[in-house]
Amino acid sequence: MVDPNTRSGEDDRATGTPAIRWEEPPEGPVVVLLDQTRLPAEEVELVCTDASVLVEAIRSLAVRGAPLLGIAGAYGVALAAARGFDAEDAATALAGARPTAVNLSVGVTRALEAHRASLGRDGDTRRAAQAALAAARRLHQEDAEASARMAGHGLALLDELLPGGGHRILTHCNTGSLVSGGEGTAFAVALAAHRAGRLRRLWVDETRPLLQGARLTAYEAARSGMAYTLLTDNAAGSLFAAGEVDAVLIGADRITADGSVANKIGSYPLAVLARYHHVPFVVVAPVTTIDLETPDGASIEVEQRPGYEVTEAVAPQAPVTGAGGGIPVAPLGTQAYNPAFDVTPPELVTAVVTEEGAVSPVTAGALAELCARSRRVTI
Amino acid sequence: MVDPNTRSGEDDRATGTPAIRWEEPPEGPVVVLLDQTRLPAEEVELVCTDASVLVEAIRSLAVRGAPLLGIAGAYGVALAAARGFDAEDAATALAGARPTAVNLSVGVTRALEAHRASLGRDGDTRRAAQAALAAARRLHQEDAEASARMAGHGLALLDELLPGGGHRILTHCNTGSLVSGGEGTAFAVALAAHRAGRLRRLWVDETRPLLQGARLTAYEAARSGMAYTLLTDNAAGSLFAAGEVDAVLIGADRITADGSVANKIGSYPLAVLARYHHVPFVVVAPVTTIDLETPDGASIEVEQRPGYEVTEAVAPQAPVTGAGGGIPVAPLGTQAYNPAFDVTPPELVTAVVTEEGAVSPVTAGALAELCARSRRVTI
Repeated sequence: MVDPNTRSGEDDRATGTPAIRWEEPPEGPVVVLLDQTRLPAEEVELVCTDASVLVEAIRSLAVRGAPLLGIAGAYGVALAAARGFDAEDAATALAGARPTAVNLSVGVTRALEAHRASLGRDGDTRRAAQAALAAARRLHQEDAEASARMAGHGLALLDELLPGGGHRILTHCNTGSLVSGGEGTAFAVALAAHRAGRLRRLWVDETRPLLQGARLTAYEAARSGMAYTLLTDNAAGSLFAAGEVDAVLIGADRITADGSVANKIGSYPLAVLARYHHVPFVVVAPVTTIDLETPDGASIEVEQRPGYEVTEAVAPQAPVTGAGGGIPVAPLGTQAYNPAFDVTPPELVTAVVTEEGAVSPVTAGALAELCARSRRVTI
Repeated sequence: MVDPNTRSGEDDRATGTPAIRWEEPPEGPVVVLLDQTRLPAEEVELVCTDASVLVEAIRSLAVRGAPLLGIAGAYGVALAAARGFDAEDAATALAGARPTAVNLSVGVTRALEAHRASLGRDGDTRRAAQAALAAARRLHQEDAEASARMAGHGLALLDELLPGGGHRILTHCNTGSLVSGGEGTAFAVALAAHRAGRLRRLWVDETRPLLQGARLTAYEAARSGMAYTLLTDNAAGSLFAAGEVDAVLIGADRITADGSVANKIGSYPLAVLARYHHVPFVVVAPVTTIDLETPDGASIEVEQRPGYEVTEAVAPQAPVTGAGGGIPVAPLGTQAYNPAFDVTPPELVTAVVTEEGAVSPVTAGALAELCARSRRVTI
């Protein structure tokens, strides 16, 4: 395995180090990830030589964000197959690395089904591996295109909701090019507004406990030249009260059939604040995030993450090793409630923006219709 | 000046190291503070030999919390006078160390007026210094008694609002014996519920950016043997949604004539969540916190604290020096919105509990009457 510390993204900074890519050096195929636990201090790439390394990268959040997890999962299956490992076993391990992330299992399944179909046709494992890789590459490309379409639909919606431009947008967690094959979801909409000269300010929630807003969204906003300001999650209330927020834009990890939105912990309080202050609360996510198999928010299994993420301060340059090891900020023995996600009910969501268009108001019927339309387009 | 590192509170742990005390060693009078920036890792006392050290301690949050700031301010004036410095100059510097904290200036004024009155009577500076000290000691004692009375009134209110006990209380920031001459404000009510066997769980918001909840409230809860759980501020929404919060109890830095409550950043979003979920939102604060001179929330000057509190991670063992110097978690150059307080309007406050009783609903008339009653009692 290549030492991850030997590659630096410094030279790529102008164009942006991609969050994920497939490479085929002489030693064999690899999946190369930008290690997001090192940002913003360092751009370090993590070279995955087999699916188990990728499983660890997913667990430790070195790679994260709903759409990118799908791409990573698909490449992971392709990697296992290309290296001669059992694709079925790899798929199970990959899909189980983050059980709440529906895109992960969708991406894994897509590569696995391409692999199975090819194997079923002629029994040739090499061709089956190529089929899995082709499926992963297609997913990657589709995701980049979907980002661009979401940005377009989202900007049109903003202009409709907030005529006159000068948008002050509040966002939570990280939803840009670090989570996507393209420019992301909610962040892509803000970026489109910025490029159109209609973004006055991006308010960036720091997003405790892992500070993806401070570390990653601020990094992407700075790199894109946007006017942005960082805040603690609990300071958003003051901004709403002062009339400083025109819209909230967030991503989603899963949207259930009724329109409930599972997203990073802290999204739901923003939805309640937005409602109280009559501010639009807009969810931007690809159609694959909509999970019609799960009827409602109450049916979502919410991961509880380790308590040490809350009870210890982790030096952000150090990769998260999954073993705690940070500086205690709370008394030893303190238990923490640390859900990865919360669930926002559809009545608090102004609109769901996808690559196939926006749904507003958010109803089970409108979401089902959108998904059906999307499948027709894909077929 | 005595080296603050030479004194350890280890031996006092069973009874609890007091947050502040006056001592008169042979080298001259001093104010001894428990350095709250070192908690929970270390119990270190900070020995203030003059008012300017105390001003720094107030600024750096080594001593904090509305009632305790009043006591510290009064002792600061007494210290300056006892050491032969100008009491008027010291009072100005002390009151200006945290302009939003009304208790600080009330405490300073009380010692200063005792000093002036004595000086006016006979011109004797030594007697004037003794008068200032007597005023500070009286304030300290009154505050301890006020805590006990707030706890009693607060518990009675909880029992009325939530018959049957088994209270699950959410609190924010730190409002216990570390902020008070006694057992505090909101925390004292939770502690009274605990002692009465009626506290099922104390939910402790970590309280970004300075983590007073994680560092201090968790420390006090652990020391008192309470069932408590720590959470990131943005996870409170999930607890409300799951029906896991029976009441919110917070302190206040200032309550204006109309009943608006200035308190630690993050209080207002809890008030909005509590209202949305029909959960009582109760403010516990001494009568001195009520500032009838300030008509409403819009008239409160809210401090903006340094951005590095948000953009840098500070190792909690290191005292806050006021110069940044932490580990960056956001890209260099990132600006932060970092208000110290937010303001909750009276319509979101279920009750204000003081040592003179509870006010509910919170109206200008009821607060004015309470203050008038309190003054009659004091006179």
